[in-house]
Amino acid sequence: MAIRTFRMISSLQAVQGSTGIMVSSARISGVGEALRQGQLSVRQLAEQFLKRIADAEGQIHAWAAVDASGALQEAQRLDEEAQRGHWRGPLHGIPIGIKDIIDVFDLPTGCGSQRWANSYARQDAPIVRQLRQAGAVILGKTVTTPYAYLDPPPTCNPWQTERTPGGSSSGSAAAVAAGMVPLALGSQTGGSVIRPAAYCGIWALKPTFGQLSTRGILPLAPSLDHVGLMAGHLEDLQILWSALRPAPMGIPPLLESPGRLLLTLPEYLQDPRLEPVMHRAFKQWQQQLEQAGWQWLETPLPIPLVEIRRHHAVILAVEAAAFHHGRWQRHPDDYPPKITQLIRDGLNHSAWSYHEARQHLRQARREIDAWLLRAGGWLALPATPGTPPPRDTTGDPAFQSPWSYLGLPVVTFPIAWTSDGLPLAVQLIGPRWQEEALLSLAQQLSQTVPCPPRRLPV
Amino acid sequence: MAIRTFRMISSLQAVQGSTGIMVSSARISGVGEALRQGQLSVRQLAEQFLKRIADAEGQIHAWAAVDASGALQEAQRLDEEAQRGHWRGPLHGIPIGIKDIIDVFDLPTGCGSQRWANSYARQDAPIVRQLRQAGAVILGKTVTTPYAYLDPPPTCNPWQTERTPGGSSSGSAAAVAAGMVPLALGSQTGGSVIRPAAYCGIWALKPTFGQLSTRGILPLAPSLDHVGLMAGHLEDLQILWSALRPAPMGIPPLLESPGRLLLTLPEYLQDPRLEPVMHRAFKQWQQQLEQAGWQWLETPLPIPLVEIRRHHAVILAVEAAAFHHGRWQRHPDDYPPKITQLIRDGLNHSAWSYHEARQHLRQARREIDAWLLRAGGWLALPATPGTPPPRDTTGDPAFQSPWSYLGLPVVTFPIAWTSDGLPLAVQLIGPRWQEEALLSLAQQLSQTVPCPPRRLPV
Repeated sequence: MAIRTFRMISSLQAVQGSTGIMVSSARISGVGEALRQGQLSVRQLAEQFLKRIADAEGQIHAWAAVDASGALQEAQRLDEEAQRGHWRGPLHGIPIGIKDIIDVFDLPTGCGSQRWANSYARQDAPIVRQLRQAGAVILGKTVTTPYAYLDPPPTCNPWQTERTPGGSSSGSAAAVAAGMVPLALGSQTGGSVIRPAAYCGIWALKPTFGQLSTRGILPLAPSLDHVGLMAGHLEDLQILWSALRPAPMGIPPLLESPGRLLLTLPEYLQDPRLEPVMHRAFKQWQQQLEQAGWQWLETPLPIPLVEIRRHHAVILAVEAAAFHHGRWQRHPDDYPPKITQLIRDGLNHSAWSYHEARQHLRQARREIDAWLLRAGGWLALPATPGTPPPRDTTGDPAFQSPWSYLGLPVVTFPIAWTSDGLPLAVQLIGPRWQEEALLSLAQQLSQTVPCPPRRLPV
Repeated sequence: MAIRTFRMISSLQAVQGSTGIMVSSARISGVGEALRQGQLSVRQLAEQFLKRIADAEGQIHAWAAVDASGALQEAQRLDEEAQRGHWRGPLHGIPIGIKDIIDVFDLPTGCGSQRWANSYARQDAPIVRQLRQAGAVILGKTVTTPYAYLDPPPTCNPWQTERTPGGSSSGSAAAVAAGMVPLALGSQTGGSVIRPAAYCGIWALKPTFGQLSTRGILPLAPSLDHVGLMAGHLEDLQILWSALRPAPMGIPPLLESPGRLLLTLPEYLQDPRLEPVMHRAFKQWQQQLEQAGWQWLETPLPIPLVEIRRHHAVILAVEAAAFHHGRWQRHPDDYPPKITQLIRDGLNHSAWSYHEARQHLRQARREIDAWLLRAGGWLALPATPGTPPPRDTTGDPAFQSPWSYLGLPVVTFPIAWTSDGLPLAVQLIGPRWQEEALLSLAQQLSQTVPCPPRRLPV
């Protein structure tokens, strides 16, 4: 896939030697302080990331469109604002990448489609407007799989380029992992945020269903669609979440003092798909946490996973078909095999099976809340069955999709690296609306058992 | 401008001699009966209008995109539905054209922009969804002036092709007037529905501000933007309005028995721009109605028109600039002179002048309602100062824009033809939310003083 560059290279000629600080692997919080104190300009920061994109994109293919000139103009404006003493907050001047199913004004929303490659958005999606208001600098649109489903994208995993970065937020995860951008937006209907983040060794948050607006975003299955956030570091993820989360509604944390109890599921640990390398890493992580005083309880989910996955598949197929089938019949050439099969499946389901699935979904979301509250703990699970597979797939969403179905908030982060340098990640799942508490738990766990840091790939 | 045809011609080869009924100048109500009784199929009806487009478009240039294959497929589905006994109502199978700033799924929303010419809409605008649900068959997108402002479009007036059809809903009005489609959607921020309808000799309704959703439509100035409806005949306009109007909220008609009082404004009749030919036609129309028992009262508007037009210009410029200025700075080549000047003006206005205009707008909308109620009548005015000017302008919106500003419903229809075959039209203005009563008044007046019918132009 050829990257569209929007005059990127010409704008980047000025970058050479603009500043000595190498920011690609730095934390936003540190960079933010440098920006605020005038040691670094927003423009220099944007230039550094654009240079990193120019250097690494040829191997990674994480970007559907890079808006170098727009980003540099915005950076200039934000520098001028800062000089006038107006500081928008911790996202002021921080570059971000936006998954290419989310509308960004005056950039195409390609959605992995050939026909939509020049479909310029005429409005920002509300979530993009929030980012701009918080001072973020949009570097461009990151590669999505076609229509955010499972057909493989051109993007490579930065740690081993013949492997998948996961999907469908492939470009967002790969761009963050490769240090091309510190933050990115993705979306998840099955496992499209958590899986690529886990495969790329970065942090991600899929908030509670309904927490962030999905307006201005291509739907896959509206009953399951979530916006997701990605970052290289937990602190950066927290900053991004703080900028986007709805105003607190005064909902008290369900697990005010959840103690130090972690729940895990036999359905995950005994799943035949679980690879030995992941099993070992997870067990070791469990033990280290236990030694640090955390308690573990292995308990089955109150709702059979097989039911959840079956109903998830029905809702996904039916709603995707409802959105896409007319266009698919008209432009079959614009639909690769997996989304084609999904639409066919959706058209073949009976209304009854969809009705049943929707009823199950509603009830399951209520039941799981009560169960988590009674259990008094947080779920901790392997984020994926193992390491990223080769690039002819985006990997199996089976380990992530139940939490999209239940609509619970999920955080993923790496806990170990394989001997050949691939990340292994866990996911934490918390009660509905408890994103802050979940991020704070993730912080405790990752500080208790730190994952060894890696240098930038590529 | 080259018309994009979407395989139109190949689909039309089958049309020849498919039915003997010539429908281009027929009323929907009559056609609907023929469809319902199986004398005509929806597909044949669509084919006839597509054939008319193929024959006349080379002279009129009313279409930004014609979706012949999509329309014929939809017609087929609606025929099958009808055969199963499912009849959606009076719009079942009726072709319609949609102004090219309104999103129609899988067709580009070009907005008169070069860069947006391939910007495929990923959702129907809600108003388009309503049309589909009512059974309308979308033939394609009609030409708009660039961004629905005053820069001339490629479209010609069907009655004299060297004259303007008016703007910005140029293609919608010209297509209906030329018998290419019985119905069309337009939009009006100043006079963009009423002016082109009047210049093209057709019927149009600009409903009360806020009655129809403008979601999924390119904004020009959201405080003033309206969706508008166009048709060749009053009955067709009524059918279209019935399909789109919000569910009645039980608001009683303000003018339950308005009697037979018509109000007119000295500001219009003494306006130096009023052409003698229009002045004569309007006076004659007044006299004929008077002879039929209608009373006339010439009374000034309670709010000075000069104030209304000044504040209208401020709101229009400021809101257009707010939407467009970033894109205009980036792509100045995509903005022709008049919209460029509008954006410049908008950027130069003070916040105070905008605030003042918005306050005036709110108060004026309240005051005019009370005034109309006290006056107990309906406003009847020339729709335009005169006949359509040459094509280097879309005409002066000064006679239509006050009613966009005040947000009152307006109906326009022709009352006479000049000796060289150009239409002269009036506009009726009624109290807020009283579209049905206004259409009913228009029916009485047009039956009392009928406008001589014309054969199809071109």
